[in-house]
Formats: sequence, C-alpha cells, structure tokens
Amino acid sequence: MEDKDYMQMALKLAAKGQGYASPNPMVGAVLVKDGQIIGQGYHQCCGQSHAEVNAIADAKESVAGSTLYVTLEPCCHHGKTPPCTDRIIEQGIARVVIGTTDANPKVSCRGVSLLQAAGIDVQTGLLEAQCRELNEVFFHFMETGLPFVTLKFAQTLDGRIATAQGRSQWISSPASLKLVHRLRARHDAILVGIGTVLHDDPELTVRLVRGRNPLRVVVDSHLKIPETSKLVATASATPTFIATTRHPDHDRARLLASRGVNILSIDADPNGRVDLRKLLKRLAKENISSVMVEGGSQIITSFLSQHLAQRIVAVIAPKILGQGTQTVGDLQITDLDQAQKISIKRISRLGADLVIDGRLR
Amino acid sequence: MEDKDYMQMALKLAAKGQGYASPNPMVGAVLVKDGQIIGQGYHQCCGQSHAEVNAIADAKESVAGSTLYVTLEPCCHHGKTPPCTDRIIEQGIARVVIGTTDANPKVSCRGVSLLQAAGIDVQTGLLEAQCRELNEVFFHFMETGLPFVTLKFAQTLDGRIATAQGRSQWISSPASLKLVHRLRARHDAILVGIGTVLHDDPELTVRLVRGRNPLRVVVDSHLKIPETSKLVATASATPTFIATTRHPDHDRARLLASRGVNILSIDADPNGRVDLRKLLKRLAKENISSVMVEGGSQIITSFLSQHLAQRIVAVIAPKILGQGTQTVGDLQITDLDQAQKISIKRISRLGADLVIDGRLR
Repeated sequence: MEDKDYMQMALKLAAKGQGYASPNPMVGAVLVKDGQIIGQGYHQCCGQSHAEVNAIADAKESVAGSTLYVTLEPCCHHGKTPPCTDRIIEQGIARVVIGTTDANPKVSCRGVSLLQAAGIDVQTGLLEAQCRELNEVFFHFMETGLPFVTLKFAQTLDGRIATAQGRSQWISSPASLKLVHRLRARHDAILVGIGTVLHDDPELTVRLVRGRNPLRVVVDSHLKIPETSKLVATASATPTFIATTRHPDHDRARLLASRGVNILSIDADPNGRVDLRKLLKRLAKENISSVMVEGGSQIITSFLSQHLAQRIVAVIAPKILGQGTQTVGDLQITDLDQAQKISIKRISRLGADLVIDGRLR
Repeated sequence: MEDKDYMQMALKLAAKGQGYASPNPMVGAVLVKDGQIIGQGYHQCCGQSHAEVNAIADAKESVAGSTLYVTLEPCCHHGKTPPCTDRIIEQGIARVVIGTTDANPKVSCRGVSLLQAAGIDVQTGLLEAQCRELNEVFFHFMETGLPFVTLKFAQTLDGRIATAQGRSQWISSPASLKLVHRLRARHDAILVGIGTVLHDDPELTVRLVRGRNPLRVVVDSHLKIPETSKLVATASATPTFIATTRHPDHDRARLLASRGVNILSIDADPNGRVDLRKLLKRLAKENISSVMVEGGSQIITSFLSQHLAQRIVAVIAPKILGQGTQTVGDLQITDLDQAQKISIKRISRLGADLVIDGRLR
C-alpha cells in the first residue's frame, strides 16, 4: 500500500459522516505503523470527537512513531473538543499526511505549523481535489459565510415543472422520491416558496430513508401560510422557519410563532420580497451550512438570477408536456454566452427517470 | 457455440448495412456446418444481393447439409434480386434458423412455408426482439406505410432550443455536431421547417463523418424560401424537396423547380399549413423509410401533437437560459397522465453535452 491508498481509505471513512458531521466537515483518519494499519476513525457527529482522536483511540498498541493519514488539516483550536494537534504531538506520532488544509479561519495552516514546530514530518495536498470535493459544502460555508445551496427539481424533458394547472405531483417516479429524501437528510435545511406550500402542502421530512430531518424554511414574504398546513401543524416536532418581510410583532407572525414556528424577519428586496441573500446570511448564523431548495419555479429562478446556488440536482422524467409551468423563468439572459453553465458531476438513472447532478460554474 | 451465439454474429453482420441497406432491412447471415462457420454475409446495399446469398457465396466448401442463421425471414419474391428461398433450397441447406419473420406483405411467413415444404427444418423467433429492434425503421415503414420519424433537437437543461432572439447556434458542443452528421447519414431524409431555413440557412448534408447525404425536405407552406439559401443553391447536387400547399404551377414553385428543387404540392391542414401526415405518405411513395426532423420548435410540436414521430434524440447542453424559444409548444395536454411518454434507450455523454435517445410510446 502506498500513501495514496491510505488516504483513499481515510476518504472512505470520512464519507461515513455524511449527513451527521455538518456543519463540521467530514474527516477520516488512518494510522499506519510498520506497514500495518493500527487505527482508524472518522468524525461521526458534530460535537463529538474528531477523526484523529477516534483513530488514536481505535489503536490497540502505542501510536508513537506511526504515520497519520488525515483528509483535513488537524484542528489547533479549542472548539467543542480540545485541539487535535495537541493529541497528535502528545502521542508521539512521527509523520502526518494531510489531504487538504482547512478553510476555517481559526485553523487555516496553523495546524500544520504547530505540528512542524513539534518536529513532526508533515506532508499536505495528497488527493487534495477529492478531499476538497468531499467537503465542498464545508469549504463553501467557510469561504463565503453563506450556506451551500442545492437546487432540486423534477421536470419533464421539455423543462416543465408542473402542468398548466399547477399540478406537479408526480412528475417523477417513486424511485426518485427516495433520492429526494436521501438528499434532504444530507442538507441542514430544506427551503421552499409559499407557492409550493399552498399547492402541495408538503411535509419536507425524511421518511423513505434513514436520516435526520433537516430544518424547514418557507419563504413567505407576506405570511400567507395557512395554520392548517402540515408544516405549521408539525412545527413543534420539526424545526420550521418562516422567512417574511413582516415584523415579528405583526399579528400573523405572533399567531404562527405561538404554533411553534420560528419567524425570521428579513429585509425586502427591491421587489418587496424576502431578500434571499440576507436570508442565507441569517441561516448561516444559525449554523446552517447547506440548504436544499425544493421549488417552486419562482424561488428557483430567484436563486439562479442572484447566483446564490452552487449545485443542481435535476430529475428528468422522460415525458413531454408541451405546456405548463417552466422550471426556470426569466434570468435576463439574451445571449447564449451568458447562459448559466453547469458542470455535470454524475448522471444516473432512477426508475424511468434520469438524474443530473451538476455544479453551477 | 450455441444457436444464439451464431444469431448474435448474424446481428453484428447485419448492422454493417446501417445507412446503406435502406429502404431494405439490414440482414446478416451465418452458415454453420459440423460446428464450423463456413460462410458469412450481410445485405450491403439496396439493390445488391441479399445476406443469405452473400453467405453462400462466401463459403469455400459445399453448403449442403449446413445450418443457415439469418436475422430476417428469407425473401420468396422476385424484387431487384431473385428469391433467396430458391437459393437456399437449391443449395441443399438442411436447417434455417430465423431471427424474425418479415413485415413486408410480399414476404410475410411465405418464406418459412416454402422452406418447410422443401423439407428444410425451420426455426423462427431466435433473438427476435433484437432482430426486430435492429430494423425498427423497416418494420415501421412496412407496417404503417409511413416513414419512421426521428425528432432531433439540441436544448438547454431548461428546455430552450434558442435564445429569445432566436439564436440557436451553438447551443450544443462541437462533439454533438458529429453525432448529428452521423444521424443524418443513417436517415433517408432530413426535414426542417422554413423557420429554421430563414434563421440558420443550413446545408443539412453529411460532412463531419463518412456517409451518404440524405434527401432534404423543407416544409414551406407558402414558399418563402429564398433562392439564395444554401439549400436551393445546392439543390442540383443534393436532392431537395420543398413541401408546400401551393400549386406546382404557382410562379414561385416554377422558379424554384427551375433551380433543381423538387416541389411537392401537399394538401393544407385545417391551419392552412402543409398536412404532415400527407407529406409523410408522399415521402413514403418516394421510398423514404426514415426521416429525421431537425426543427424548429413549430415543426417538432406539430409532429408530436399529431403522433407522427417514433424516436427522439435530445442533445442536452448543461446550460440554463431561463428565457427563449421552448423546444416544444402547446400539445393541448392538461393532465400529467396525458404527457407523451418516452422510453429511454440510451444515455450518453458527448463533450459537455448529454444525449438522450428514446422512443415515443
């Protein structure tokens, strides 16, 4: 086994934290001594111990003199747990191979220098692209201060998200629904526009797969959400935010708050609607590092036109409607060169549907 | 090797006739004697000898007592070549294994009975689905009397075929252009609406790959095509039909005819435009068994709404425009259940693009 094979293992371990580590990054660690793997660990859940510490605890023998492979630069600050650099130095680990340095301003590159100052042989940047990609959400969150936004929609081949009557259930196949639930479990929050609530009365919870329920956010500039909606009715069980331009003292705001809904009063944009960038900033303050937007068309269009989305997951049902609600509305694009470009990461087939997973460039 | 392995070989041979055999079916044949392949052949080009005859000619030894594997029922009528059944009987072939029976009313099932009457052991239906699929164009043509129609379009992920200004060059990537040329070479005719001619002034010839130029058809109800268009200018080199509701004696019709264009006068539909079903019937009379429709949006919509298309090849560019010409217009569909369904045959990536090849159900 070579260095990169161990790092590959550490990457696989890291991925096990998917959906649980957030807003912390997913991290995996492997300890190797005399060509033998003596310890493995990953960051399982936010607030719990880090990958490096878990790998050390996993070792049945002394880790002194061993090499630590870790996908992300070890932390050097006191967060919810003590700094990992202290543990690494204390245990006499001889060499540390790091996938990528940390984007967290409290850590960045100080972890490496602390280890080097203690006489440890440090190498960085092994499988860096993969290590960064695994934590694209975390890096985006750290670097921009805004949550990583995924736009998810199901449309026909001809780009229709609903019939002319506004019916959108069910454009996609049952197999695709499971994917949606899996995606929900992997995001900190799910966001929809009030139109989707009024049309579909969704629950936006994770039911078809195992996983935690994300926080639910409704963009409802004028507080039109009915108290009888499933989202309000279940707000005490699953955290639910309503973003509005209304003051929290507004009668309806107070009524909804009394039902367990969290009212976020956000400044209006020039169109009198909730300013989405400000809403994202507010969500970031709540430690929401990722948001999945599940529609409808107006919200998707707003996120795209303001360049606030990073990822697109498009479920394409092999059907043609010819008429109905377009997935994307006017983006003020007149020239082909201005089209928003997507780099496709993965294409998969799910039941009769096709799923395109891409990143906005 | 088993029977189906030999039939598989015959299928591969048959496919070599792609783009040349039309309007004849693609057919492959393998001759086996004492477990040895002694002859192989396929139908190379319309008007030339059939697969069975080529396999017999290929054999270096006597084919008496051998087994013939052939993807399609041998013909029993005098066409451009003598009946294959005669040759098979004459040569003393002992057993004939047939992929699928013929849809041609002149042949259907009489080939089998003629062979059986001559004491030959005949088996039919081996790998039938594949043998039928290979010749889907031929079977459709024979069974309906209309050409097999492929709708080909390049669109953005959000279903836009052109910008709001009507610009469509180039939505897709250069790699996809090659595919278009390959598809052209495999269809008997290419059809576009007059809008596409006026916008793009295309040549509709095969340039980026090897292959024959298909016949070119423009649907131009009111003869708006300019004499200066590339299609008219090159009409003497590449057969070009203009389908119009105008009488052939109309001044413009006579002028265009004098430039080498073939004027097809077709009855108008209730909207005063060329009746597409009647146009297809007319093309079938010219022995056109397959037509690829290359747009624009209005023609695509008409073919879909009249259920005249069998195949869709959609090139999807990973871009979002938000506005512009929709690929498909109104199909009078109000309910999701009425959506036109596509079964996806193949998904491939071509450069940055995604290609969906499907059949309308």
